[in-house]
Amino acid sequence: MLYAVIMAGGTGTRFWPLSTKSRPKQFISLDHGGKSLLRLTFERIKDTVAPQRIYVVTSAMQRDMTAKELPELSLENIFAEPVARNTAAAIGYAVVRIAREDPQSGFLVLPSDHLIEDKDKFIAAITAGAQVAAKTDSIVTLGIAPTSPSTAYGYIKKGAKHAEIGGVEVFEADEFKEKPDRATAKQYLDSGEYVWNSGMFVFKNTGFLAAMEKHLPKHHEALRKIQGSILSREEETVTVKEYYALEPISIDYGILEKAENVKMVESKFDWKDVGSWSSLEEVLDKDGDNNAAKGDNVLLGAKDNVIVSEGGVIAAVGVEGLVIVHTPKATLVCRKEDAEKVREVVEKLKEKGLEQYL
Amino acid sequence: MLYAVIMAGGTGTRFWPLSTKSRPKQFISLDHGGKSLLRLTFERIKDTVAPQRIYVVTSAMQRDMTAKELPELSLENIFAEPVARNTAAAIGYAVVRIAREDPQSGFLVLPSDHLIEDKDKFIAAITAGAQVAAKTDSIVTLGIAPTSPSTAYGYIKKGAKHAEIGGVEVFEADEFKEKPDRATAKQYLDSGEYVWNSGMFVFKNTGFLAAMEKHLPKHHEALRKIQGSILSREEETVTVKEYYALEPISIDYGILEKAENVKMVESKFDWKDVGSWSSLEEVLDKDGDNNAAKGDNVLLGAKDNVIVSEGGVIAAVGVEGLVIVHTPKATLVCRKEDAEKVREVVEKLKEKGLEQYL
Repeated sequence: MLYAVIMAGGTGTRFWPLSTKSRPKQFISLDHGGKSLLRLTFERIKDTVAPQRIYVVTSAMQRDMTAKELPELSLENIFAEPVARNTAAAIGYAVVRIAREDPQSGFLVLPSDHLIEDKDKFIAAITAGAQVAAKTDSIVTLGIAPTSPSTAYGYIKKGAKHAEIGGVEVFEADEFKEKPDRATAKQYLDSGEYVWNSGMFVFKNTGFLAAMEKHLPKHHEALRKIQGSILSREEETVTVKEYYALEPISIDYGILEKAENVKMVESKFDWKDVGSWSSLEEVLDKDGDNNAAKGDNVLLGAKDNVIVSEGGVIAAVGVEGLVIVHTPKATLVCRKEDAEKVREVVEKLKEKGLEQYL
Repeated sequence: MLYAVIMAGGTGTRFWPLSTKSRPKQFISLDHGGKSLLRLTFERIKDTVAPQRIYVVTSAMQRDMTAKELPELSLENIFAEPVARNTAAAIGYAVVRIAREDPQSGFLVLPSDHLIEDKDKFIAAITAGAQVAAKTDSIVTLGIAPTSPSTAYGYIKKGAKHAEIGGVEVFEADEFKEKPDRATAKQYLDSGEYVWNSGMFVFKNTGFLAAMEKHLPKHHEALRKIQGSILSREEETVTVKEYYALEPISIDYGILEKAENVKMVESKFDWKDVGSWSSLEEVLDKDGDNNAAKGDNVLLGAKDNVIVSEGGVIAAVGVEGLVIVHTPKATLVCRKEDAEKVREVVEKLKEKGLEQYL
């Protein structure tokens, strides 16, 4: 059976001040009828994967919030990691728990902060991916045909064509590339040989665990111990101990870049990884002055800004190229190209003892 | 006897969002121990003019707030204008009411939004001004020796020296000049012949009313009618009717620029008319990157900004030359040179039906 695992353990640092400790990024709503990113992710798959087979991996602190946001899910379907250890651990944890009950389980792994406009193409892609994974026991990644030389995403080099299923092409994944500089990104785009690495995957538990055993053997060992402890008296002790000892590493870096048996479904849906404030430029509607704005605002001679207000109003006069965010507790103003520095702002707030604003 | 009249009827449009309909500019606190501009004005004179002779002219809406801010004042000392009609009417209204009780009354007229650091020099200047006004029955303005070619203030051209009292020089006021452009301001400064028009005045009721009768006869007539109605059954009807019919005009434009008998005390205290957000540059302490900041904030690579947060935090990254203001209900971001456009923001908020933020 196919299970969906939504990764929703983020702390949302990059979307401060709209996202905070008490409301991480996956709980914020951008411009989609007030629905949170997490809710949109759930709704996107719930007709394809039945809610009893949809799971969320999150933190203990966010478990209740997640349950409230997705009342269709049984509480048992919301896994709380003892501590965040990046995606290899989070995915592995869900896999060993579910595989213990269903040794035939296949998995669709989805981040909780993507926006996808064309649901039908998305479903076609994951359906094709699930077929390939079932047949070959490989790890199948969803690649997105790039529409711009984006430097915000990693890239995958297409290898030999493997199959075509329902109009969706599947290739070998030849090489994973980290976020490139502009010139390299342009070269990737022009060559037609690269796709964006979406961070969405399809695999069977067997293929994933075999690859983990080979490339992240310590992860594999720890997760097998956790798996063995489930429902025993030692479950909590073992889980906490093994989890804390895990190296924080992503599935891309820890497994996919090294594994041989990786395939790639080339998808053409309108996909956005809402990674930072500046990425909202592509998400929100724009006015005649190229401002991407949400919430109450008054703009006078303001151009090319990203403007998001919640619980208040933003007035912007004569400014260009800025990100401006208002919440009742905080205002963020930064140049668009500095949007990633919001992490530093969060660090600085901690240093200054201003954690009440996080 | 000398009476002080504090003009505190402003709506504070230029300091939105810190000043609002429910808390006009004179009630906001800048960087002086949490004291409001109005409170600071009161405290500056209360040892020179006894509180029972200190009066405030404000609007009906702000009368209670004013009483709360200045509990030392009897409620009878807070005059509420039926409607705002600029400074000639506001001052005239206070003068006719007080002169009815005390035909020998002299007046010290003070705006409620000035900052003055050197109280002793201020007291010396008004004392000299009061002596000159008493002797000559002229209108005496307080001029400030300029320290920069400011384009934010009007200027007064010094005439012949009239007197020197307690080390304070008094001159004829030869000419009033509107806010100049930069080049003209520089010329004024270099010539040594000009002072800033502070908007503070000293006069006897007789000298003021005679000048008003000559240069603003309709004002004079209306205010005499109001004066005659005081304590009669028609007082309210007459006051409202006459007041609404008054032309809104400033004392500078309506009387001072035209009157012959105007003298000027040249003062050298550190004076600031806190007229707009950009003027806070000179009021607030600056950090090493030339940011004038007040309230909780985190600045990363931000330079030359005016940053004021209340009830929240401002994070500014990589921005220069901006005014950034945060309140729980609103964020303002504008270029310093556009600080005067806050008025337009307020208009636009009204147009858009967003008056809840005013």
